[in-house]
Formats: sequence, structure tokens, C-alpha cells
Amino acid sequence: MKKIPVQLAHRSYQILVGEGLIDRLGAVLPPAAVSGRRAAYCLSFPVIWKRFGPKVKRALAQQGYTVRSRLVPDTERSKSLSVATAVFKDLAAYDSKQAAFIIALGGGVIGDLAGFVASTYRRGIPYVQVPTTLLAQVDSSIGGKTGVDLPEGKNLVGTFYQPRLVVSDVAALSSLPARQMRSGLAEVIKYAVLAGGGLFAFLEKHLQDVLRYDRASLEAVVGACARIKAGIVSRDEQEEKSLRTHLNFGHTIGHAIESAAGYRRYTHGEAVALGMLCACDISRALGLTGADAGLKIEGLIRQSGLPVVIKGLNAAQIIAAHYHDKKFSGAENRFVLVRDIGRTAIVKNVPLPVIAAAVKNRLST
Amino acid sequence: MKKIPVQLAHRSYQILVGEGLIDRLGAVLPPAAVSGRRAAYCLSFPVIWKRFGPKVKRALAQQGYTVRSRLVPDTERSKSLSVATAVFKDLAAYDSKQAAFIIALGGGVIGDLAGFVASTYRRGIPYVQVPTTLLAQVDSSIGGKTGVDLPEGKNLVGTFYQPRLVVSDVAALSSLPARQMRSGLAEVIKYAVLAGGGLFAFLEKHLQDVLRYDRASLEAVVGACARIKAGIVSRDEQEEKSLRTHLNFGHTIGHAIESAAGYRRYTHGEAVALGMLCACDISRALGLTGADAGLKIEGLIRQSGLPVVIKGLNAAQIIAAHYHDKKFSGAENRFVLVRDIGRTAIVKNVPLPVIAAAVKNRLST
Repeated sequence: MKKIPVQLAHRSYQILVGEGLIDRLGAVLPPAAVSGRRAAYCLSFPVIWKRFGPKVKRALAQQGYTVRSRLVPDTERSKSLSVATAVFKDLAAYDSKQAAFIIALGGGVIGDLAGFVASTYRRGIPYVQVPTTLLAQVDSSIGGKTGVDLPEGKNLVGTFYQPRLVVSDVAALSSLPARQMRSGLAEVIKYAVLAGGGLFAFLEKHLQDVLRYDRASLEAVVGACARIKAGIVSRDEQEEKSLRTHLNFGHTIGHAIESAAGYRRYTHGEAVALGMLCACDISRALGLTGADAGLKIEGLIRQSGLPVVIKGLNAAQIIAAHYHDKKFSGAENRFVLVRDIGRTAIVKNVPLPVIAAAVKNRLST
Repeated sequence: MKKIPVQLAHRSYQILVGEGLIDRLGAVLPPAAVSGRRAAYCLSFPVIWKRFGPKVKRALAQQGYTVRSRLVPDTERSKSLSVATAVFKDLAAYDSKQAAFIIALGGGVIGDLAGFVASTYRRGIPYVQVPTTLLAQVDSSIGGKTGVDLPEGKNLVGTFYQPRLVVSDVAALSSLPARQMRSGLAEVIKYAVLAGGGLFAFLEKHLQDVLRYDRASLEAVVGACARIKAGIVSRDEQEEKSLRTHLNFGHTIGHAIESAAGYRRYTHGEAVALGMLCACDISRALGLTGADAGLKIEGLIRQSGLPVVIKGLNAAQIIAAHYHDKKFSGAENRFVLVRDIGRTAIVKNVPLPVIAAAVKNRLST
């Protein structure tokens, strides 16, 4: 088991990465991490709870925790104020002794919703992330961004609120559908581009092992990504410096593609993969980098089975969505671009024709 | 004008106390305090906005701010997730350029709601408190407790989130109804008991001046209370040490009285006045203090025109409400009691018969 610290003074916490951690959840959860609270309120999706719920209950009961589960519909629409309101009311009914803490068991939707509820219920109670998707293990469970969506936009209501512990059990990934695994890999590739060095080389060598769910490879990859993200969050918790902004590599055009496609055709990871390729093309067009870095990145994306061309959309739709994206204030845009593997740069006011050319270049012909 | 600092490292801010500050709101609001944002989104009640809205608009427009107002119904029920949801949606429609900050213009309900919205909209935008009631000026506008109610209890959903500036214009109190003025005085007396010294002596001498809305006396009192609360909040922002707990003096039984009376018969301040008297009686019964302190406190409460006997309720109702109060975890209770003026103590597990006797002693016969 790897223990990776997120260092944020009195809000510091650990990320545990290993195999079979859900079976030992009670034992790996130090009572002090949840301020001695004994009533675990588990938020999950029905399909996830069916698979892991009995293990979670057993593991927590063995250590004397009481457990209550609350299941919400398995859809992004569960990240809403109306679902949050129902959870608040249920939690208030359960928590008469004020001993509850929250366990988020699931992917990004569950983590974001659970974190938001934990951050605002009675002005904040402890929560523990137990991510069960690759995407959540390497990215969304770490760093304390919580949120729910409004019809007006995603994550418009949320907080920065750190979990007390993240427990990433790579064994849980065995049951992850292949498309979700590939989606998670897009974020893994993002980290490899940001950090360069060992992780990028590891992926070039072992991507096939990851794709066949090899647990040692998964543990290496999840651990490496968690370490990178923990390092960034430790230095720039609330995205006040530009450090955390680098994590948006691939996300500017990625979000626009997701949004233009109505969040249906592409998963988040698939859209991010396409966004990274567009960012590489823009980087090259602006003379920040040669062809090499982009080709290496595209190689990993192809190997992962992620898309390298955009289907079912035209450039105008993506550009329009891009100008509605929350990353833009006024006419200004901001991209994370690539100088080399391991070296990204934040560039503002990329000219629209350059963006449009990069998007067009990736359209299916 | 008094400038009182709340010292919380990079979240430090100032409380401005003076006469006519609303007329100069734009000028006293440094652009840096709201991170250079230029779009003021004012949350208020219709009756308050009618009175101060034109001044606020003029004062902000003079400094180049744009202003939009959003008015919510003049009731505690506006502290709800459904009202917050409507505000979030309105704000998202207004804030396409991400330049908005919030101004809370009103009493505690507006401040709590506005603070909650500010703390969670896009994971936090700046807000400024412009309290227009005595209660809000001396207490609720300072310290960053935000919240909305659930049917299950008050303030069950909220955050700790500090304003960027508090602007307390004592001239705004001229139009405050006498009953609200007296209610605010209950919290003023609370601060005088906690801090002792100058403020208590000042009230013993000048309470009548305050009651006739003398602005110099109001400025002295609001300034003194703000300084006391700022000092406590600076040392214990999130009520993690017991310092901030002392601010609950009078609130344990006070909340129980408010709740048992269905939040109708007594205002918050009236209930707190009765709660302080009960706490004095308990303090004496437990031998923490003699008769003196209680008599002095009762003297101020009487002079303020606040109630000294509980009407329309019986002891059983109050005790039952007390055991539902959020200040209790399990069977344990926790009181702020009085040793002397300026010296309070936190006491746990006060025996029920002692509490019951103190409540009965205050019932109208």
C-alpha cells in the first residue's frame, strides 16, 4: 500500500493506494481522521453499492462503526441541488447525535455530490473518498473540489473542501467497464504530460498491462498520478496561483466538445483526449513545440483506444461551446499548452483562427 | 469612522463602523477587497431595498460599479435551499463575465443567505456585509457563519466563509423598529457580560441614549461589540477551540425558548435575554457566582425593555426543545455560565433538575 500525503497544514490528509483496501476499510480508517465520529453515512450509486456495499459494511462494522447507505440515481443529474436537498434531509434525520461522517463510494459524480454535502451540512462534517473508477482515483477524489450542477452550467455550486482520507482500492477497478477504464486513462496521460519523466515512460512501456487490468501496473499508475496531483494541490489548493491551472490541460477544448455533444457522444475522458490533441496542435501552430511531443502523446492516446478524431460535430459548434466555457472571462481565453513532455505553459488570448484550425484538423472527414 | 480588523491571515478583513457609510459605500469599498470585481449583486428585502437601494446604487455607480438587486421575501423562510437555488440561477444569468460579488444589505436572514450563496457559487465569490439591524451589526455580519434552514432545523446547511468587508452604518438604525432595536440590545448585553469592563459600564450609563437612537452612543456600542467579536473570531474562526463557544451565552435556553414558542412569540434577542437570565440562575445554583452578577445583568435587560419572565410556555416544553437543540450531542449538554461580569465559563453536563429549576423560576406565574 502506498501512502501519499496531501500537505495543507491542519487540513492535511493521506491518499492510500493499494489492492483490497475496501475489504480493510475500517482498519485503514484511523478514528482520528474522522474526528472520532462513528456513524458512517455512505453515498453511492445502486450498482456500486450492490458490488461493494456488503464489504464496506462488514469492514466498518468490524471496527465498531455504524453504517447507513444512501443511494442516488446513477447519472450526472444526481449532481443537483434537488438531490443534495434530499440527502441533507435524510442525513439530518439520521444524524441526531451529530456523530456522522460521509463516505463517498463511487466515481466523480458521487465524490462531487458527497463532498458538497459534507462541506455544507452543519457547516462541514468529515468525509472520506473511496473512489471506484480510474478517473476518480487519479483525479476527482483528490484536491477537495466539490460541486453540483445548475441548468446554467456544471459545478456552478460547490466548495473547496478537503476529504479526511482518500482510499483508492485498485482491485475495485476490475469491474470497471473498458470504456470507463479508457476514459480514466485520458487523465492519466494528462498527468504524464504534465509531469513527464517516469510516468510517461512507464505508460509507453506498460499501457497494455494497465488495459488488461493488471493490478501492479494499476497501483503504479494510480500512485504516480495521485502523487502528482497531491503535489499540485498542496501548493495551490484553491487555484489561486496558476499551478493548479495546469491540470486543465486538454480540458478547454475537451469541455467544449463534451458540451457541444450534449454530454452524450463522448465521455469526459474521451473529450479530454481530443482536447489534448487540439492543445498539442495549437502548441505547434504557435511555435511552442515541434512535432515530437504531440506525436508521442497521440501514440499513447491511440494505444489506449481513445478517439483521435472528432465525430458528429462541426468546428462552429465546438467554438461556440468554447466561448461559453467557464474558463473564459470576457473575450479572454486561456490554454494549457505543451512545450515538451513534462513542460506545459499557460497561454492567454490564443487567436481564434489558430483554435479553429486545430479543431478542424481533428474533425472526422 | 472606526476600522476594526478581523485577523485571519490571507482572509483578514475590516469592519467599518460609522455614520452615513451607506451613502459612501462605493468610496469605502476598496476594489481590491472584492478582488477587482465590478458587478455588485445586492441581496435584500423589498422594504430595506426601498429605503436604502437608491443610495446604494448611487454610491456604487459613482465608483464605476454596476449594480443589480435581487429581493427575497421578508421572512426567515427566505433562508432556504429553494430561495438559494433561485438566487444561484439568477446570479448565473447575470454573471456571464464572472465579475460579480455579492452585497448583503439587510439583517441576519439576508446576511446568512447571501454568505451561503457567495461561499458556494463557483466555489466562492467575494461578498460584503452591509448590516442594517443592530443584531446584524453587532453579531451576525461578523465571523463568516453562513447558512440556510432545513425543515429539520435552523442553519443545518451552511459554511464558514468570511466576508471581504463589513460596513456598519449606524445611521441605518434610525429606521429600525423599537422591538428590533431591543432585540439587538440582548446581544449587546451578551458581549458586555463576556468582555466586562468598559462596555458593561457604558451600557449601565448610556442605555437610554442607545434606546433613543443616539448615533454617537450607537457607534460606541456597535464598535465595541464588533471589536469583541472580531477578537474572538480572529482566534477561533471555526469554533474549534472553545473561545467562540462563549458567544453562545444565553443561547442554549434561548434557542429552546424560541423553538418551543414556534419562533413566533419571541424574537431571537428576547429569547436570548431570557436565556441569559436562566444561565445566571444556573450559575448561581451551581455556586459559580453570587447574586450580584445576575442582578446587574437583569438590570440591563429590564432597562432595555426586554422580557424577564417567560410567558405562554411551560417548563416541559422548553426542556424538550432544549434536548433537541443542536448544541447537544447525545445526552451531554453544554452551557456558557457566569462567574462574574467579564468572566464566563463553559460547563458540561449540567444536571437536568438544575436546568428545570432555573426555567421554572423564570416562568410567568
